[in-house]
Amino acid sequence: MDYSEIVEFHGHSCPGLAIGYRMSLAAMAALGVVRSGDEELVAVVENDACGVDALQYVSGCTFGKGNLLFRDFGKNVYTLYSRRSGKGVRVVFHGRGLPNGLREDKPAFIRFLQECRDDAILSVTATDAPPPAPARIRNSVSCQICQESVMDSRLREIAGKTVCMPCAERQVQV
Amino acid sequence: MDYSEIVEFHGHSCPGLAIGYRMSLAAMAALGVVRSGDEELVAVVENDACGVDALQYVSGCTFGKGNLLFRDFGKNVYTLYSRRSGKGVRVVFHGRGLPNGLREDKPAFIRFLQECRDDAILSVTATDAPPPAPARIRNSVSCQICQESVMDSRLREIAGKTVCMPCAERQVQV
Repeated sequence: MDYSEIVEFHGHSCPGLAIGYRMSLAAMAALGVVRSGDEELVAVVENDACGVDALQYVSGCTFGKGNLLFRDFGKNVYTLYSRRSGKGVRVVFHGRGLPNGLREDKPAFIRFLQECRDDAILSVTATDAPPPAPARIRNSVSCQICQESVMDSRLREIAGKTVCMPCAERQVQV
Repeated sequence: MDYSEIVEFHGHSCPGLAIGYRMSLAAMAALGVVRSGDEELVAVVENDACGVDALQYVSGCTFGKGNLLFRDFGKNVYTLYSRRSGKGVRVVFHGRGLPNGLREDKPAFIRFLQECRDDAILSVTATDAPPPAPARIRNSVSCQICQESVMDSRLREIAGKTVCMPCAERQVQV
């Protein structure tokens, strides 16, 4: 999979995307896995910045498949698990081998990120933690106020009615 | 943009993906917009199910670009905004025109979802609410325990140290 495909999906090239691309490739190589068509792989990401788009595209751990889990820690860390082997790896961007001043020259920074050795920018370590549970499919029912369909785990009871969260919020405000 | 491209990104075809594809096309047609290379478009999604992968691919509102906002209401609703025009549309999947029993025949359901009229499955209404604020880029600093880089808004103060959330959590447990 080529970096240009990732750029097309993300919409533009940037250092964050190039970093996420390298982190994703390193994680998959360490696990010896290919892109996830269903939930064979699962990723936990500790930020929601550009690089995660590279991870979605490269690994197939996507927001809509439920195998991309977001922990809002503000850290450039991805943990990727294979459900088949039960193994996981934690990839951290540290950037220790970045030449001084490189971050200020964006095109040169992106070029460097495509050509440098893994250990100049990231570390990969095995994790002992088990993979997160698979995504669940829930039933839907109608909100008794707006009549729109709602996942059953997200219903609220208010004034004797079973309603969606936005309708419940509006009832409280009235 | 063809449905087969969406399937390739998502990893497989399913009714949820086909629904999200139609919702995304309807939203973009109603706004008269093209795919978002940067943050020209912004989407608020009320679920994290398969269809959102279609929205990411079709609209360019992606998890990593910060223009895909998740409200965990369990509803099959997307609200798409154009920052250029300031306009927004709310697309709701209602499925009122689905033939009885169709949901049980997955391949036929997916075929129907690709060929049916918009109003058989969804509604599009203009919204008066302004678009959400653009994504912010934050600075990063090192956690004083693990030394890993952390976005400044996610730092915690604990025992006189400035640390990341996972290290803060471990300190509390000790």
